[in-house]
Amino acid sequence: MSFRYRTHNCGELREKNVGEHVVLNGWVDTRRDLGGIIFIEMRDRYGIMQVVFEPTFNEAAHHQAKDLRNEFVIAIEGTVRKRPAGTENPALPTGLVDVMIDKLIILNEAKTPPFPIKDETDVNEDIRLKYRYLDLRRPRMQHNLMMRHKMYILTREYFDRNNFIEVETPVLMKSTPEGARDFLVPSRVHKGKFFALPQSPQQYKQILMVSGMDRYFQIVKCFRDEDLRADRQLEFTQIDVEMSFVDQENIFEVVEGLMKIFYKEIWNKELSIPLPRLTFDEAMEKYGSDKPDLRCSLEMVNLNHVFLNTSFKVFQDQVKGKGVITGLLAPGCGDYTRNQLDVLTDFVKKLGAGGLIWMRVKENDLEAPIAKFLSDEEKKNIVSTLNAKPGDLLFILSGPRLKALSIMGSLRLEMAKRLNLIQPDADPKLLWVTDFPLFEWDDETKRYYAMHHPFTSPRLEDVEFMDTDPGRVKARAYDLVLNGSEIAGGSIRIHNSELQSKMFKALGISDEEAEHKFGFLTNAFKYGAPPHGGIAFGFDRMAMIFAGESSIREVIAFPKTASAVSLMDDSPSTVPEEALKDLHIKIC
Amino acid sequence: MSFRYRTHNCGELREKNVGEHVVLNGWVDTRRDLGGIIFIEMRDRYGIMQVVFEPTFNEAAHHQAKDLRNEFVIAIEGTVRKRPAGTENPALPTGLVDVMIDKLIILNEAKTPPFPIKDETDVNEDIRLKYRYLDLRRPRMQHNLMMRHKMYILTREYFDRNNFIEVETPVLMKSTPEGARDFLVPSRVHKGKFFALPQSPQQYKQILMVSGMDRYFQIVKCFRDEDLRADRQLEFTQIDVEMSFVDQENIFEVVEGLMKIFYKEIWNKELSIPLPRLTFDEAMEKYGSDKPDLRCSLEMVNLNHVFLNTSFKVFQDQVKGKGVITGLLAPGCGDYTRNQLDVLTDFVKKLGAGGLIWMRVKENDLEAPIAKFLSDEEKKNIVSTLNAKPGDLLFILSGPRLKALSIMGSLRLEMAKRLNLIQPDADPKLLWVTDFPLFEWDDETKRYYAMHHPFTSPRLEDVEFMDTDPGRVKARAYDLVLNGSEIAGGSIRIHNSELQSKMFKALGISDEEAEHKFGFLTNAFKYGAPPHGGIAFGFDRMAMIFAGESSIREVIAFPKTASAVSLMDDSPSTVPEEALKDLHIKIC
Repeated sequence: MSFRYRTHNCGELREKNVGEHVVLNGWVDTRRDLGGIIFIEMRDRYGIMQVVFEPTFNEAAHHQAKDLRNEFVIAIEGTVRKRPAGTENPALPTGLVDVMIDKLIILNEAKTPPFPIKDETDVNEDIRLKYRYLDLRRPRMQHNLMMRHKMYILTREYFDRNNFIEVETPVLMKSTPEGARDFLVPSRVHKGKFFALPQSPQQYKQILMVSGMDRYFQIVKCFRDEDLRADRQLEFTQIDVEMSFVDQENIFEVVEGLMKIFYKEIWNKELSIPLPRLTFDEAMEKYGSDKPDLRCSLEMVNLNHVFLNTSFKVFQDQVKGKGVITGLLAPGCGDYTRNQLDVLTDFVKKLGAGGLIWMRVKENDLEAPIAKFLSDEEKKNIVSTLNAKPGDLLFILSGPRLKALSIMGSLRLEMAKRLNLIQPDADPKLLWVTDFPLFEWDDETKRYYAMHHPFTSPRLEDVEFMDTDPGRVKARAYDLVLNGSEIAGGSIRIHNSELQSKMFKALGISDEEAEHKFGFLTNAFKYGAPPHGGIAFGFDRMAMIFAGESSIREVIAFPKTASAVSLMDDSPSTVPEEALKDLHIKIC
Repeated sequence: MSFRYRTHNCGELREKNVGEHVVLNGWVDTRRDLGGIIFIEMRDRYGIMQVVFEPTFNEAAHHQAKDLRNEFVIAIEGTVRKRPAGTENPALPTGLVDVMIDKLIILNEAKTPPFPIKDETDVNEDIRLKYRYLDLRRPRMQHNLMMRHKMYILTREYFDRNNFIEVETPVLMKSTPEGARDFLVPSRVHKGKFFALPQSPQQYKQILMVSGMDRYFQIVKCFRDEDLRADRQLEFTQIDVEMSFVDQENIFEVVEGLMKIFYKEIWNKELSIPLPRLTFDEAMEKYGSDKPDLRCSLEMVNLNHVFLNTSFKVFQDQVKGKGVITGLLAPGCGDYTRNQLDVLTDFVKKLGAGGLIWMRVKENDLEAPIAKFLSDEEKKNIVSTLNAKPGDLLFILSGPRLKALSIMGSLRLEMAKRLNLIQPDADPKLLWVTDFPLFEWDDETKRYYAMHHPFTSPRLEDVEFMDTDPGRVKARAYDLVLNGSEIAGGSIRIHNSELQSKMFKALGISDEEAEHKFGFLTNAFKYGAPPHGGIAFGFDRMAMIFAGESSIREVIAFPKTASAVSLMDDSPSTVPEEALKDLHIKIC
């Protein structure tokens, strides 16, 4: 059927257009039949426009309009009119005008949708995902995808302006033996061999530095075959960045420049740079997290010095060993009931704590189950160190350092929630966390693992401890944290083969193993690798935060569910025998 | 080791910088030791800069420079000097100045590369691909990747400016039963089920139109598991575009706007738009190809009318049936030897022709093996129809229409090559080919297939023939052809369920089969699908042509070889048993 392409979209007509003859294309958003007159609100990606069908004005169209239902696709021609006084709709940008119909063409009919195409919806997410094509008609989802598009554009313009070039790295790449979470792709041509989908283009971007590309970025899909959580997807998008001849400061400068633009263009806020920085140790001590949410003002305090000579056995053990005693003040919570305190004790026990020490702050005293084990001086010191006032509640946890700190960090966030310390409109908090440990000790296998990856450079002043005391070696690694979420992470890489060998040795990786696992990269390094480093942004999560959403699925057009399926196209799915035969595999 | 970040790159110093103290980072491109003085040409992505080590100027650095070898990575500090008269190098943009060394830091050493890092190279491509990190240091490859980056940026800016939004579609999607060339990805979580990698985001982009996104584009990786040819890769990049409420003209306008930008920004040429158009039938008749290379002026001519009443049996059969008699004039080739003609006959026979009819044009006569079967009038008509002159050579092929025409099309290109009709600097030729057949008849399975895909709309005036004479139905499908390569192809889609059913019926696809194969798309269409259409560009091939290269591997950072392997990372590769076990598959 023949129809005319719109002269205007549904969001742009204003009083200045009054009298113009216009063509609109779009969907019936709502239809009100007032007996005599029919009003259609017509919708497209750009907005909503009211169209008026008056029998005295155009009888044929009015007659036709009786057939219209929600979500019908129509093309209309008509004349823009100033709405009669009193019928303006201030909620719509187009609300001062409407279009008097001349001609209506129904381009397509529509079944009644399983849920209304409105922002406010309480429909089950599974239904939304099954009918994603309808869910994406909701203005909020359209806004989210448009914002995401804008973030792509801002990112690319920014890196282009700064001499970065975008290079596509392979999606079909080599599987790494330790790539336990690799997606594998059987080769049809080469029986028994497999490609892997990249968990990140890490090795390729380092190769690009070796090849002199100098400044590389890419917005790129990565893949990890792990069980999904609320904020993970099998496939996810990264902004991947790598630069040559740089140290950490150069990378921070580039990243901060991009974040300043996002703040301005998405949130209309001025981001003050340079950003605050916390070392990993500071972040753990004060916030019990390597991705602290600074919107919450609660801070943990190290109490080890208070108990240097304590006779309380539990604390004694920690002070003498490598443990920590950490305290948190919950302002004004001195009236928490025993029941409330039990719930919080359960909370930390579930996270692995032995128990939770709590103290109610009274005038000149602490009321607490463990009070009797503490000296008056210790009690006084606790109160002064935590800056506590009568009516406050104190929590103390002790134990192995990282474990105790991170449990207290979780309790801190729990208290922030209970005390409503993070308002929805709170100023966003962005910071760097730096100086991560290079190695992570695994109690189970009794060995060190690279906390970031084996190409991360140690701090040069710590290199000497790589053999003798790996645990104290810090990495030139950094995370960018926004509102308590890690939105980017990176490091300066090792570019020197001797240091790389040292690193492999510390990780217990033999030369042959290294050659087998990372052969093409370590070989490349022999031909003149420049000093280099980089960072990768979790684009989905960042988009989620900028959109003000609480699930990344709200900023992904076609996400998988938490059980790793796509409800819209019903994948993964079975495939015919022959297809598997072609690929030389069978199910077992 | 500590070094300073460059103040300038290696390509930007000019006479105005003379006297400045500068820091450069880069690679040793060449080193000339003239006994007393050592000259280093230092290279980065931006250019080449000469650095001078004079013992009288800085003895320590001169001494150090003796250790430098090609591809060492260095940081230097020094002072920009106007080169002494007579030593300028006009071949370099920086050739009027050099840098007198103050300080040299060797950041990394380098083994001798297996081939020189120069544009001119005769090294085997397999070696280049194995050492891709060195191959990519060659300025030509760097230029190609930078041009490719520029094409991304131009594309995205253009579509953004025109209200398109970029949406990422899934890489892990549903395998289609007929997706014989799908890459499959076993699901770990769902035993016996598989994802497929997209051969194109076709169904998702149509879904996005149903969801009201209005104008979509994406630069996206697609995958096809087929045997590779010179210009194919397992993974390839598309510019994918879809628009709502449009017909062919709207799409042409958008595409032509983009091509005009590429012409200007990459080639510095003015592209005159609107572009010329040929229907599929015209292209086949005149050029024997649906992607004609118009840089070659040779045109084929239909001779059916000459032989309407011929007594020559071979032609009679074609004229009476649905066959074709097509002629091609090879100007000035009347002196071709019998041997040359035999070679050309072999050429067409290999393509499936029964033989090749040739005629030498003489004054008032045609010299040809078949001359005796032709009447004088026929001969006269051949000469006049082909506009032949004495000294020319004529070729005639007859047979089933598309087959004979396309063989003659190949002969046309072969003659263009032999006669050097396409100069390397010939003006590029860009055109639309339109009105493709909707169906393609397959002789083997005796049924019709969709030439494009089953969602392609027929021309509305041809719908009536879909049941009665499918072969004559033309599609609203179009290709964009540059210098004889299809660089983009698309169509207006069917948005109406009745027409879609008709299409499935014509293809012999039952309702259940359609539901099973395309269920989520056909279902989506029931909820108000707008009229829509789109196009997809083969980005790699287009980049290849704009870069003036003859293989797409020259514009892809890390390509696979023609035997579907990556020589650099040696993939695909075997994987451990346990990995397969996790995925519930085994090799068989």
